[in-house]
Formats: sequence, structure tokens, C-alpha cells
Amino acid sequence: MEERQISKAVIKRLPRYYRYLGEILDSGMERISSGELSSRMKVTASQIRQDLNHFGGFGQQGYGYNVKYLHEEIGKILGLDKKHNMIVIGGGNMGQALSKYAAFERNGFNIKGIFDINPELIGKKIGKITIYPTSSLQEFIMNENIEIAALTLPKAAAPEMADLLVACGIKAIWNFAHTDLVVPKDVVVENVHLFDSLMRLSYNLSSYEKE
Amino acid sequence: MEERQISKAVIKRLPRYYRYLGEILDSGMERISSGELSSRMKVTASQIRQDLNHFGGFGQQGYGYNVKYLHEEIGKILGLDKKHNMIVIGGGNMGQALSKYAAFERNGFNIKGIFDINPELIGKKIGKITIYPTSSLQEFIMNENIEIAALTLPKAAAPEMADLLVACGIKAIWNFAHTDLVVPKDVVVENVHLFDSLMRLSYNLSSYEKE
Repeated sequence: MEERQISKAVIKRLPRYYRYLGEILDSGMERISSGELSSRMKVTASQIRQDLNHFGGFGQQGYGYNVKYLHEEIGKILGLDKKHNMIVIGGGNMGQALSKYAAFERNGFNIKGIFDINPELIGKKIGKITIYPTSSLQEFIMNENIEIAALTLPKAAAPEMADLLVACGIKAIWNFAHTDLVVPKDVVVENVHLFDSLMRLSYNLSSYEKE
Repeated sequence: MEERQISKAVIKRLPRYYRYLGEILDSGMERISSGELSSRMKVTASQIRQDLNHFGGFGQQGYGYNVKYLHEEIGKILGLDKKHNMIVIGGGNMGQALSKYAAFERNGFNIKGIFDINPELIGKKIGKITIYPTSSLQEFIMNENIEIAALTLPKAAAPEMADLLVACGIKAIWNFAHTDLVVPKDVVVENVHLFDSLMRLSYNLSSYEKE
């Protein structure tokens, strides 16, 4: 597939383009030059032109980019034009926080259920979403066509749960556990390692203090 | 400063080294070869040797790395040998989730307070941590020597709050708002853009499906 040859670095930048273009669209602008996009995003204009050329070059000399078109096209590349059914594993604080993000549903990510082993949580609702027992996971994933599982368990419990999710047919794990997961090649893992992020912040803070 | 010359790419990898070394330490291993660390972390052994050489080369030919020593040294580089006082801005789900992570305090990140403008939340406690009104922010930051603020507000409210935090002397913002912040050069920003992460997952999922 042509798109698979796009470098990982470009892919990493695409969500940020999508976010900025969404903000520009909300502000009512219909077109934008690579120069202006560059000054907002604090990347060079040539980087922007190079990145966006990968997708057939949506810009036109002397006109700039059509914001709505570019936003939509990048959205399609990111798979946002399709609906994705999701579940959240773990009804703790992070699981509840994710379940309440309205922006996910607005963008086609529908959280269909939350799963926990704690009997006190089962049957409760977080917003509109019910907490189910982990024992019903396999049936639920099949019946509800679940593609994505957000994994918000402590690190000790995460690997075993990841194995179970993969065995149940989950195709992508959004991993919030403080450990890396080992999964088959055709399963996508996207990590949100919060403590790694806090350590990077701490490193940068320390280097400033030493100056 | 010598350490400031370490490339950003190496810095980005350090928290992951720290995490793996912590796991290896917990499992009771005292030393490890770059080859074995390589197979666990799924990076090449030469990459590991190169990365760790930046810090004076903690490895010894034929012995491998002293796990405890390397873990501690990387911890120091990351600033984990010092205490950091933190606040959380926003007493919503994400703010509450962060406030309940015991791992932060265990590693020297002490959350001293949560701040919100919602009168119904003020005075409540999340675990041991009190929710205060935003009006007392400036005094609190000064009196409690707060360095780091975790910003968990909606994107519309985030830029103004970031300005206020900087004016109050905050040195680092851990930004969970779905927008980029503009701050002076000497203020550290570390972003956790959850929706960007979900979009990357969605992209990878879509590219697999096309194969």
C-alpha cells in the first residue's frame, strides 16, 4: 500500500496537523498558506510542504491549502472517517476519565462498555456506559464488533489481560499500563506511558535549573 | 552543561530504560548484559551501548551493567533524586485520576493540591489531596514551592490558565489539554495529547486493515 511507505515520523506529526487544521476551521478560516500554518505550528514551511506532499499535495500555488479539504483528507488517512467500537478495561479513575471524554465519540470512537473484576463496580454506569464483569468480555467483543481496547490496569495485571484481549480478537490496544506489552505482529499497540512523560518533564526541568 | 548536549532522541528513550531497569531490579537481577537488555527492550545492543555511553558508560566488559547503579544514575539524570512539588489544575476526571496515582509520590512527585473553579468541588478531598479555589492559586504556588502544574482543563480554558501559572512562577506544565501552549522559553511544557495518541492508533489500525 502506498500509504504504508510514509515514514513513521510523518505519521507521528499527522494528528498534530489534524488538530491545528480543526482549530483553524473552527476559527472560520477557509484557506491557509504553508507560511502561516508554519508560524502557527512552529515548524518550517518547507517541512509542512514536504509532509503534506506525501498525500498528493493538497496545496495550490498562490492559493494555499483549502483548510476543510485538507482536514478531511488527513482525517481519512487517520481512519477518522470510519466508526470504531471500543471498550475500556478497568473501571478505575483513568478508565472513568477516558469513558467521559465526549470528543472520542464525536470523532467516531464509540466506547461500548467498561470491564472490571471488582463486584462493587459491576452494573454501575459511567455517564451512559455500563461496567460489565470481565467474565463477559469474550462474548461482548464478538457481539459488539469491538476493535479497540483501552487498557487501564496496573502493570502486574496488564500482560495477562493483553493476551486475553488478543485471543478474543481485539485488533488494537491503547495501553495505559506502566509496562510494554508483547502482542502478535498484526495487533496494534499505542502506549500512553504517563510516568515516562513525567520523567521527561522532570529531566527538562532539571537541565534548566542547572544553567 | 555537558548533559544538555545529549540528543533529544536519547532523552526520550531514558524513561524507558529507567522503567525496564526498575522491573529487572524488582525481579531480583543484579547485573545484565547489553545483549540481554537488548532482547527485553527490543532495541539493538549497539544502540543500548551507545545510549548508555553518554552517561559515562556504566557497563563493564564481561560483567555487564550493574542494574541498581545504572537505575539510580539514570534516575539522577532524570531528576528523580529530588522532590518536586506539584499541583493539578482541574478537579475533573483526569485531574482526579492523576491525583490518585500512588507511583508519582513514591518517585518524589508530591501533589500538594488540586485547583478548580467549580464551587461544588472546592473543599472536597481526592484521597488526601484537597481541592482549592483557583483564586488562591498564586499564594499557594509561592507558599508551597510548587514547580510543576498538571493542566487538565478543556482546550478553550487552557491558554489563559497557562499564562496565569507562568505569571505565578510555575516552571513546568504537564499539559493534558487538547491544544499546544505558548510559554516563555524557560518554562518546560510536556504534552500528553491523548486524542493525538488515539489517532495514531487509528491510523495504524487502518493501515493493517488495508493489507
